[in-house]
Amino acid sequence: MYEKKLPVNLDCGLHLFLQVVQGKWKINLLWAIHSGIKRPGELQRKIPNATRRVLDAQLGQLIEHGLINKVVFDQLPLKVEYELTGLGESLIPVIEVTAQWGEDHRNELEQFFKA
Amino acid sequence: MYEKKLPVNLDCGLHLFLQVVQGKWKINLLWAIHSGIKRPGELQRKIPNATRRVLDAQLGQLIEHGLINKVVFDQLPLKVEYELTGLGESLIPVIEVTAQWGEDHRNELEQFFKA
Repeated sequence: MYEKKLPVNLDCGLHLFLQVVQGKWKINLLWAIHSGIKRPGELQRKIPNATRRVLDAQLGQLIEHGLINKVVFDQLPLKVEYELTGLGESLIPVIEVTAQWGEDHRNELEQFFKA
Repeated sequence: MYEKKLPVNLDCGLHLFLQVVQGKWKINLLWAIHSGIKRPGELQRKIPNATRRVLDAQLGQLIEHGLINKVVFDQLPLKVEYELTGLGESLIPVIEVTAQWGEDHRNELEQFFKA
């Protein structure tokens, strides 16, 4: 029997995406870790407008939601790095699409956000 | 002279995108208006977890950032609708990509967000 493929209702997918990236710095954190900025101190310097407490909280949620792992190196002094999981890696092309949109509309958008 | 096309630094584009969608309900609002839900009362019913004050504030910012227009009909009782601008329309395919990601990873993600 030919089962007419109903258009997927993307409301639920959108809701899940928003749940995962909910938090002012999460997309920035994923993008930075993807770009090779893996250590807490480096992430803080890359995202200076966020407090360390807020970054740590959002990193914790990204771990909880399976997007990144925390790697603790068994050495002194203690060394910690964050890395993307497979699920986290799968989000990078999506983030690139959002970034490309911003780049494509830079002139229109920058007039709104002049410092 | 052959000008080697440097890979576009998407940091700035990503920053602009995040500025525009910064605010818990903005992507939901854009998606709802795109789906034909245009009137303030309808938007409130579609996004029950947001207060009317917060929705109105974020609708105001979306207008300010050129993504939507507010249309006031010259009639009694007063009738107001929101519509996407060209810039707003251009964001819909990007939102669809994010929604599709959520849909593609629904099983992995739903385990984290069971109500």
